Amino acid sequence: MTVNVGVVGVGMIGQEHIRRLMTKVPGASVVAVSDVEEARAREAAELVSGAKVYAEGEDLILAREVEAVIVSSWGPTHAKYVLASIKAGKPVLCEKPLATTEADCSAILDAEAAFGRRLVQVGFMRRFDPQYVAMKETIASGAIGTPLIFQSGHRNASVPAHYTGEMSLTDTAVHDIDIARFLLEDEPEAITVRAPRRNSRAGDVADPLMTLIDMRSGALVAIETSVHIAYGYDIRGEVIGESGAVSLPDRSEVVVKTNGAFVGRIPPDWRERFAPAFDIEFRAFIAAAAEGRVAGPSAWDGYVATVTTLAGVKALRSKKTEPVKLRKRPKLYAN
Amino acid sequence: MTVNVGVVGVGMIGQEHIRRLMTKVPGASVVAVSDVEEARAREAAELVSGAKVYAEGEDLILAREVEAVIVSSWGPTHAKYVLASIKAGKPVLCEKPLATTEADCSAILDAEAAFGRRLVQVGFMRRFDPQYVAMKETIASGAIGTPLIFQSGHRNASVPAHYTGEMSLTDTAVHDIDIARFLLEDEPEAITVRAPRRNSRAGDVADPLMTLIDMRSGALVAIETSVHIAYGYDIRGEVIGESGAVSLPDRSEVVVKTNGAFVGRIPPDWRERFAPAFDIEFRAFIAAAAEGRVAGPSAWDGYVATVTTLAGVKALRSKKTEPVKLRKRPKLYAN
Amino acid sequence: MTVNVGVVGVGMIGQEHIRRLMTKVPGASVVAVSDVEEARAREAAELVSGAKVYAEGEDLILAREVEAVIVSSWGPTHAKYVLASIKAGKPVLCEKPLATTEADCSAILDAEAAFGRRLVQVGFMRRFDPQYVAMKETIASGAIGTPLIFQSGHRNASVPAHYTGEMSLTDTAVHDIDIARFLLEDEPEAITVRAPRRNSRAGDVADPLMTLIDMRSGALVAIETSVHIAYGYDIRGEVIGESGAVSLPDRSEVVVKTNGAFVGRIPPDWRERFAPAFDIEFRAFIAAAAEGRVAGPSAWDGYVATVTTLAGVKALRSKKTEPVKLRKRPKLYAN
Amino acid sequence: MTVNVGVVGVGMIGQEHIRRLMTKVPGASVVAVSDVEEARAREAAELVSGAKVYAEGEDLILAREVEAVIVSSWGPTHAKYVLASIKAGKPVLCEKPLATTEADCSAILDAEAAFGRRLVQVGFMRRFDPQYVAMKETIASGAIGTPLIFQSGHRNASVPAHYTGEMSLTDTAVHDIDIARFLLEDEPEAITVRAPRRNSRAGDVADPLMTLIDMRSGALVAIETSVHIAYGYDIRGEVIGESGAVSLPDRSEVVVKTNGAFVGRIPPDWRERFAPAFDIEFRAFIAAAAEGRVAGPSAWDGYVATVTTLAGVKALRSKKTEPVKLRKRPKLYAN
Repeated sequence: MTVNVGVVGVGMIGQEHIRRLMTKVPGASVVAVSDVEEARAREAAELVSGAKVYAEGEDLILAREVEAVIVSSWGPTHAKYVLASIKAGKPVLCEKPLATTEADCSAILDAEAAFGRRLVQVGFMRRFDPQYVAMKETIASGAIGTPLIFQSGHRNASVPAHYTGEMSLTDTAVHDIDIARFLLEDEPEAITVRAPRRNSRAGDVADPLMTLIDMRSGALVAIETSVHIAYGYDIRGEVIGESGAVSLPDRSEVVVKTNGAFVGRIPPDWRERFAPAFDIEFRAFIAAAAEGRVAGPSAWDGYVATVTTLAGVKALRSKKTEPVKLRKRPKLYAN
Repeated sequence: MTVNVGVVGVGMIGQEHIRRLMTKVPGASVVAVSDVEEARAREAAELVSGAKVYAEGEDLILAREVEAVIVSSWGPTHAKYVLASIKAGKPVLCEKPLATTEADCSAILDAEAAFGRRLVQVGFMRRFDPQYVAMKETIASGAIGTPLIFQSGHRNASVPAHYTGEMSLTDTAVHDIDIARFLLEDEPEAITVRAPRRNSRAGDVADPLMTLIDMRSGALVAIETSVHIAYGYDIRGEVIGESGAVSLPDRSEVVVKTNGAFVGRIPPDWRERFAPAFDIEFRAFIAAAAEGRVAGPSAWDGYVATVTTLAGVKALRSKKTEPVKLRKRPKLYAN
Repeated sequence: MTVNVGVVGVGMIGQEHIRRLMTKVPGASVVAVSDVEEARAREAAELVSGAKVYAEGEDLILAREVEAVIVSSWGPTHAKYVLASIKAGKPVLCEKPLATTEADCSAILDAEAAFGRRLVQVGFMRRFDPQYVAMKETIASGAIGTPLIFQSGHRNASVPAHYTGEMSLTDTAVHDIDIARFLLEDEPEAITVRAPRRNSRAGDVADPLMTLIDMRSGALVAIETSVHIAYGYDIRGEVIGESGAVSLPDRSEVVVKTNGAFVGRIPPDWRERFAPAFDIEFRAFIAAAAEGRVAGPSAWDGYVATVTTLAGVKALRSKKTEPVKLRKRPKLYAN
Repeated sequence: MTVNVGVVGVGMIGQEHIRRLMTKVPGASVVAVSDVEEARAREAAELVSGAKVYAEGEDLILAREVEAVIVSSWGPTHAKYVLASIKAGKPVLCEKPLATTEADCSAILDAEAAFGRRLVQVGFMRRFDPQYVAMKETIASGAIGTPLIFQSGHRNASVPAHYTGEMSLTDTAVHDIDIARFLLEDEPEAITVRAPRRNSRAGDVADPLMTLIDMRSGALVAIETSVHIAYGYDIRGEVIGESGAVSLPDRSEVVVKTNGAFVGRIPPDWRERFAPAFDIEFRAFIAAAAEGRVAGPSAWDGYVATVTTLAGVKALRSKKTEPVKLRKRPKLYAN
């Protein structure tokens, strides 16, 4: 039983998704692609013999042969494609952010509620990462007691040219915010953002940042983002509980001893670091889609992440603690 | 393009292979199964709707719908199925050992040479393990200088009831012997086996063992096998060169701090430890089979491993260093 | 050449100092002790045959046989003993805090300036710890680029009964504040203190705390204090630079593999963790005292630490960022 | 109470011992030195004001002011100085080897037995190393079950010019042999030495070597010596038991992240690696000498180490397993 997938937005990430579906995910067949740049769409279609090219994402979503949708287009376009997918009753895996405004996120929540069941999975792949899953299981086991503080470090060697301004919050810390909610099973209440001395290579990017989030339980989340740190892609994390702590270790394939040092490798980018997470995420999406369902992070998770990062942007500017005001959680997303 | 696979021998490992093909390896379809126990074959066939059950492995291999063969039956039956696959001109992935006698291994070499190209891949999955691949790349980079010693540790928490006698060599150390050849790009010349004080849970199994292999270059391989060590499945390895060393580190998903200790997890068994290696191995087999080829460890690798472990069994009994006498390497397997 | 030392305050820590001088520090002789509890003074004197007991610390300091003074009495009494030592022209090693009020610290600075050269060493032993020294050398080497953030974690398994209220700042974080100045070669400008959900065993102690310090350069210091964390005494630290990072690793003597885990030991308390630092600190004090000098952290360092922790106490109460207002650095303490 | 020490042999190591006594070991005073090169003796005497220079080691040992003797002269001279110390009834700390021949070692055992109590401590400083002590305590705790195999790795970046021939056994592996006995509480029965492909920088030194020792209990000791390995001084060790294992981890002061790698430091030489062990060893010697006793590794330990390394030299030449024939353990050394 094969799920026929249409991919909206086939830039670098979309093409990576296509390759992943072809080489790592049995039971999926990419049958349609779409992109604002037609040439890019044709290029992507060639990766998969027989995929049809659509000029408009909405047409792809409506196409009879498409059973499930992957949205990896430019962030501001996510909302319309997700809404179209819901309208078409098709499972959709949408890259983060779910939408770039609170209103759009909220509209998606309403649409899904109106449809009556979940159709949206948001691309917070970390929730499928075996390391974060082990972290969550450790907390659940009681081994560290009630969690009090979560420290998260999100470091990129460098960022692409289109990365500017406050994307350290909206594009980078957004992952840490979601994983904090996942690990702590708690919601953000307020956010504070501190901008230390700027990295000399950071241009207009607010880098590094230290973001503090007060959770409803009183637990504190401290997120360090450093997106020009040169040495590699390094995801740090430690949950500090009442009686213990759990953290992500460095995990090189080998240790090399040479020249007075023992040396391990740090991954160069998120592709390598989260490759297993993406594999598992896509398999989960396809397995659920085969049954007309979705699994994993929901539209509610996407909504909270967007509202929190937008409050963070405000806090960075105001230099004050800003509240994170969430609408009531719809029943569809009850835990 | 899908490769239709037949699986001969669908016990615990064979069924695991079927599940792997179904959930991790796009482009493969299990269409036929066979087993000495018919009930088990029917059980396996149910995993894959539509797979045909064959009473005889040879009939499965000859069946028109079968394009590639996986042999995971009892070791002593491997040779006949591999030979049948070669005769049928079908790519075959044979679990180790390739065959249990030197004569059978040699017959396979001859059959493949007669056929004119490689059709056999031996199931030495370690060669696809990202950690061993990184180790080999480190050596190739010159970072540690010429390799002089390889120390390998192969530890099982426990072994199944059918594991007896000298299987520490034929079933366990065989993997270390193959990976030593892979890492050092060298052939064994002589083997010595030391049996220290026996583990009190080892029964008639020679456990632990320290096996020394002199390679043609003069490099020394020292393999520790401990197959009742209780604490977990732990694969150790270090290559010591003229100016450096490269080793396999412990790699837990998380580190937990509790009760005066920091604690990482050790995998319970080979299934978990080598899951990525098996995934990559099977993808490589299917990708090559789609083109009528095979990749990875060859029948020659299977031959050398068997000859070396048999010399090891002799050395354990004689308490002497025994030569590893290899036939000339056929041209088909030229490096 | 032996330095004759008098110890004022011979409770648990003072007695530990005496034992250290006797067993680890050649060239020192404890000749006098003093304590508010006479019985305790007599007990301590018995550790060192021939040490004279003084009822009043001031008398000990003035005693002709005393050449150098160690102050390990109750914090609020530090100032008077340090001032007496300066007046007597004798080198003094004063446990932290130098004094509990800004006025007292300032008076000590004035007294030392009037005397014309340094006589005071403050007991910030971390500055002698080989790990922090290596951290500082790494920063100085340029390996991580300009430091932007320092994250410090200070975790105690538990704290004694007399530890109450805001001592997480004045007694615990004070060490992290000093070491931050040492590592970054920078001064605090403002301080913010966040109190997350309280550890259920913390009583009236503000625990855990997340303290943020803005340094003059713009670098940010984030200090986590957790003083009822049960699992051990764990000092974490990472300096994040523009192009790299340097951190304190876990350092067990051995790694034990058992029951599905690899396990390292975490020290139970500061005595074990900082034993090498204390040894080196005391040797440095005695070696300098033999020449009538002092080395290591100065009265200025003690002054800044006290002013900063007092601003921290204010910030914890006000829930606002509070300025750290420092007097001008006297010439005596020029870098 | 001060112990007056005389040092026989004040080359590089002897001078290091003097500095250690002066700066790390309270209660000791170096009052006399002696060396075959008078100039060197005068140089060493200047390190300690007031130390008397003796032309002959025997005269130093007999000198009234000398209460305890340290022998750090050339190996072949050890025996005569140790015998003279016993005759003089003075505690003596003798660098390894105790003596270079079995006959000399045996004569020392006889002399000590005749004297009626132990006066000799052999300089196997590893027995005082906190890491090996923790390893021994782990075994004693039962955490790994009965020990079956001990793997030891002894790696030097390089060796001095006077290091030739079979010194990998007599000068290097001798430490591993002693620590194996200490950890396993067992005696050697037979020894086998394998010489793999030689390091191209090794000249006439047998390097690397793999030495196997069969212990009386059946436990196996495997010692890798690599003395031109360039990258640093690296002491590896793992004891493999029936149900667990205990090993020595890499222990850098800091971990530095830069250029795609995380990097820890490996000590350059034994001076740094075993500095804490030497400190503790010397304190133990002085503390015992103050009471006219000795502690730590005995003349029997020195005897067994020498007999075993000499059997190893024979085994390297014969390429056979050679027995280690020990005389009966005198009562003086009963466990």
